[in-house]
Formats: sequence, C-alpha cells, structure tokens
Amino acid sequence: MAKQDRAIRTRQSILEAAAVVFDERGYDAATITEILARAEVTKGALYFHFASKEELALAVIDAQMATDLPAGEPGRTSKMQELVDMGMIFAHRLLVDPLLRGSVRLTLEHGSTNLNRSSPFNGWTELHTRVLEEGKERGEVLPHVVPADTAELIVGAYAGINTMSQAINKRADLERRATVLYEHVMPSVAVPSVLARLDMAPGRGARALAEAERRRAAAQVPEVTPAGVA
Amino acid sequence: MAKQDRAIRTRQSILEAAAVVFDERGYDAATITEILARAEVTKGALYFHFASKEELALAVIDAQMATDLPAGEPGRTSKMQELVDMGMIFAHRLLVDPLLRGSVRLTLEHGSTNLNRSSPFNGWTELHTRVLEEGKERGEVLPHVVPADTAELIVGAYAGINTMSQAINKRADLERRATVLYEHVMPSVAVPSVLARLDMAPGRGARALAEAERRRAAAQVPEVTPAGVA
Repeated sequence: MAKQDRAIRTRQSILEAAAVVFDERGYDAATITEILARAEVTKGALYFHFASKEELALAVIDAQMATDLPAGEPGRTSKMQELVDMGMIFAHRLLVDPLLRGSVRLTLEHGSTNLNRSSPFNGWTELHTRVLEEGKERGEVLPHVVPADTAELIVGAYAGINTMSQAINKRADLERRATVLYEHVMPSVAVPSVLARLDMAPGRGARALAEAERRRAAAQVPEVTPAGVA
Repeated sequence: MAKQDRAIRTRQSILEAAAVVFDERGYDAATITEILARAEVTKGALYFHFASKEELALAVIDAQMATDLPAGEPGRTSKMQELVDMGMIFAHRLLVDPLLRGSVRLTLEHGSTNLNRSSPFNGWTELHTRVLEEGKERGEVLPHVVPADTAELIVGAYAGINTMSQAINKRADLERRATVLYEHVMPSVAVPSVLARLDMAPGRGARALAEAERRRAAAQVPEVTPAGVA
C-alpha cells in the first residue's frame, strides 16, 4: 500500500472513530483520548491529520455532505423524485452509517461551544435549491415556488423530524416521518402530474439505492469505492 | 407578601435564572453556582425547590408548555388559525422570553445526559392533535388528514426550522421561516375556504396576542397575571 493510501485510510479511521465518540458523548464530553483508543492510532498520527478536537469535529460535520448520494444521476423519473430521494436515502443511511450519525449529532446539537454548525444546513440548502431550480426549468414545479425558500424549509423541517425522532425513539421511525413530511410539502411544490408519480413511501431510500445500483451495472460504470458508499 | 407568595416568586426567579444559564451554556456546562449568582438566592433556597441540576432542567423544559398561549379562546376565525397561531405566537415570544429560550435549548440539544427531552414534543403534539381533531369535526380539515401524523410533522418541522434559524442567524428570522412552513403545509391540511382566510404572515404572533387582548378587554375578563404572559 502506497504511503499516501495509508494516510487516507488512517484519516478515515480517525474520522469514523471520532464520529462514534461524538455521537455517543456529544462534543463537550468527547475526549481525544477516547477517540485515539477507538481509532487505534497514535497521538502523533491523529495530530498529523487534525490539529484539535474542533478541527476533527468540523471534518466530521462536513463528512455528511461528502456521502455519495446519487444526486443528478441519469435515469431518475423526475427532479422532484431526486429531491425526495435526498431525504429518503439520508434516513436510510442514518441507520447504517456511524459517520453520518456523528455528523448529524454535531450539527443538531446546540452546544456550548462556538463550533460552526451552519455548513451542512447551507450545503443541503444549496443542493435542494439547485434541484428545485432544475425542476422549475423542466416545468415540474408550481409557479409560485421560490426555490431557496422551499429548500430551506425542507432542510430545516427534516432536521427537526430527525431531532424529534431521536428524542422520542432513537430514530427508529425517521423514514416514516420523512414520508409524512414529503406527503405534506410536495403538493405545495410539484405540479400534479409529477406529484402523482412520486415514490415517497417508507423504504424509498433502499429502493433508490438499489435502482442506482442497477443503472450502474447496466451502464457498466465501475462500482463506487467502499469509501464512497460507507 | 405571604410566605407562600414569596416561595412562588423565589421558585420563578430560580427557574428564570436557570433558563438563562442553560440557554447560554448548555446543560452540561451550566453550574448551580452560576444559577445561584444570577438568581441572587441562597443555596438552601435553591435546593428547597429543586433537588438537583437535572430536576431544575426538567422544570425549565416543562415551562414551555405552561406559557399562556391563548389556545381555545373564543373569537378565533377558525381552528386552523388557532393551529397556525400556536407556532406564530411561539416565534414571537421566543424573541422576548428568556425562560422559553432556555426551555427550547434544553429540548433541542441532544446532550450527553439522559435528560428526558420528549415531554415538550409530546405536549405540543397532543395540543396540535386536539386542535386538528376539533377542526376536522367542524369541516375545516381535508378528509385524508390523520391528525396525529400532521401534528407530529408540524411540531417536528417547527423544531427544525428553529434549530436552523439558531445555527444560521441566532433566531432572528424564525418568524419568516414559520410563515414559509405554514404556507407549504397548510394547503395539505385545511380546506380551501378556510385556507384562503388564514393569516400566516410574519407579525401574526403579535397580531394574535393583540387580538386576544382586545377580546379580553371587551369581555371585561380580568387581565392575565404577569407570570401568565411572561
């Protein structure tokens, strides 16, 4: 293994270990010592990649935007399905991906520190705005919709159902709550002919990923790397 | 001042001081010492009312349900306006009421402790469910609406726009975000004739409180106590 590959893997192990510790303890209570123990790396290795706990937390926060959501893939029925899929796939992955869970906890925790949590909100809002604007160009979106407002609403509301699901039953019902959100909001966003064909039902996250997988296989595009889907 | 009145006021001062400290520092970093200094009471007085920091935090959390929202008042145009007003008045009060701010922070902070945060989510959900059920009986609600699902969605989504507003600009735009939420959700909830008459615009919180005040004056009902509107 080349020196550079090893460095990338070490960085990834540290990030994943940190995400688990942040998810379990929160930012304030998490310690570098515990992250080191879980990542099984030396203090020197950790500080080579991240100068401080804060820098580590910011990298974990940013990792939620780096997860390989199949946005903009060809073969989707509509841009509005793509919009819904962002949330449905996120709900699905949150149950299986510790890095995403740590990132979400740090983002939604209104902690005592000055950790800047606005970056995922802004990142997701930009992504949603872009998809809504593209949908508008294709005639999928109702005329009164202001893409940036709708984007901010969906991102904010989604964060809230996530927090509520966490507070009430450890996120076990997030997918069902995401379905209820889209069922209430999409009739105010999509034109009826597009709305009627949207799949917003629980399980859509897994279905969308399976569809993307089939499209990739059919197109004989090389598979995404494990890091990309983790 | 009777002994009992004094005890009630002392309890209220402690609660308000605790709310400010929790809002500024978060649950984990807040100390009893700081709360004592801000409330200007003795340690003995504090422990007479609250056995621990946890008990104090739970009382602050519960205080958000005790704030005197004029729910169920006569003179409202519709139950759906009452539904919208719960959120618009909340946004208005959050800017002026430190006790509510502390309560909201504790509720939305996914802290490292086992503090039970589900109570306001459940309380608000029950209140929203009741208003939706009453609206349904009066023919204000679309037939496919399941009151408990819609109630949970609105409460969860509201919590999220609150968190996002906090993360991005210290809640300065919460009212505008609440307006965007209701504009997107209410068309999927209220029948068109009721929808057309809803006031969901920014400033509705202050307008609803002023209307309630005028109705009270007209009915010559005694004013609510300062504690009730604080």
